[in-house]
Amino acid sequence: MSRGTVYGVGLGPGAADLMSVRADRLVRGAAHLAYFRKAGRAGQARTIVEGMLRADVQEYPMEYPVTTEIPVTDPRYAEVLSGFYADWAAKLRDLAEGGTDVVVLCEGDPFFYGSFMHLHSRLQGAVPVEVVPGITGMSGAWTATGKPVTWGEDVLTVLMATLPEEVLHDRIVATDALVVMKIGRHLPKLRRALAAAGKLGAAWLVEHAQMPQERVMPLFEAPEQVPYFSIVVVHGQGRRP
Amino acid sequence: MSRGTVYGVGLGPGAADLMSVRADRLVRGAAHLAYFRKAGRAGQARTIVEGMLRADVQEYPMEYPVTTEIPVTDPRYAEVLSGFYADWAAKLRDLAEGGTDVVVLCEGDPFFYGSFMHLHSRLQGAVPVEVVPGITGMSGAWTATGKPVTWGEDVLTVLMATLPEEVLHDRIVATDALVVMKIGRHLPKLRRALAAAGKLGAAWLVEHAQMPQERVMPLFEAPEQVPYFSIVVVHGQGRRP
Repeated sequence: MSRGTVYGVGLGPGAADLMSVRADRLVRGAAHLAYFRKAGRAGQARTIVEGMLRADVQEYPMEYPVTTEIPVTDPRYAEVLSGFYADWAAKLRDLAEGGTDVVVLCEGDPFFYGSFMHLHSRLQGAVPVEVVPGITGMSGAWTATGKPVTWGEDVLTVLMATLPEEVLHDRIVATDALVVMKIGRHLPKLRRALAAAGKLGAAWLVEHAQMPQERVMPLFEAPEQVPYFSIVVVHGQGRRP
Repeated sequence: MSRGTVYGVGLGPGAADLMSVRADRLVRGAAHLAYFRKAGRAGQARTIVEGMLRADVQEYPMEYPVTTEIPVTDPRYAEVLSGFYADWAAKLRDLAEGGTDVVVLCEGDPFFYGSFMHLHSRLQGAVPVEVVPGITGMSGAWTATGKPVTWGEDVLTVLMATLPEEVLHDRIVATDALVVMKIGRHLPKLRRALAAAGKLGAAWLVEHAQMPQERVMPLFEAPEQVPYFSIVVVHGQGRRP
């Protein structure tokens, strides 16, 4: 019996027709479909593919055992998550070893700050794994602003808003174009870092890029509460003939 | 008579089935199709869509008046290119004002270091323009290496190899994950900057990512001559439970 393949499939930023033709074909054809979600939620990845699935699809919701209840710096956080990824990697490996293909849904691009990476590192070499790249959430966000993000020789820096304020500040000062992800409750800190770097007025906030509830606004007009998956963009000002 | 729309359509890194479902539909339906290319060449964007076009499609190859004949620092370079973009923007505007939709093919993502941006800035506000994001060439490249590019709180820096050696060096030292684009004849300089930053051994070179002629290799094994559109990737080593 030949082994199955685990497919890590990038879904892109949120609109179903922004997934690749290859991803679309794999999702529509999937008999076994796995995706991450917070317990009790539908899950963003699963929401994107609603209406595309086979009637007989077998679904494997992989529910994070912890999200914000334990700080990421707490050793228990890594321990709990490590066990979670190991368990699911074992289940997917068993399926593939039994000859079953499994499609794992990935928001954005699987190899860019994605949860699938933690399964990939545990499955690689054990069973066949294929990764289908996707349009990143940040591409969706800068497209939503209606302005190009990088010109000529602009340097682009991508930061997580979870970083310390002084790190954010120094990185923001040093770059031409900027993308900041995972914002949520880190917004006040990010706002201070941008202001101190003289870039608050040039920053845009994009919530739910390329989804029906998309909102785009100058960051200084943004509310205090924004979703975790909001993205801040500062456009580069490089050479343009 | 209603005006037409100019569509800037991201084609992704190179494989036809890595364009989005939306891009695929626009390309297959296009009656008027424009794309950049070097004079005398088929053009990478046009090559990607070969076999997908309507039999009666009208094509507008936009041939760069200059590529490497004049240094980018020479004022004539900006002048010649500026006239070129202005002329084509006027032609596309005329088509749209006459009620015709035009699809402009863009390699990768249109708003990420793309030529379409120079048309977009001249058309915006004059006629309807819509941008369809695409999978970036860099996503195609890091996927081709088989390893995730960014983990946890990794900082990602994107650089053009055309930058001065000391700028490259300082940026390479300061980042966790790295993407360098537009390499070509700048390879020896980039190699020295990576070596001085202690990262040459960790760097990967990807040529023609996600195309039939794709090649992936450790940078220290790369030949002296590589294509302009090669991409160098240094993977981040951030938190991974």
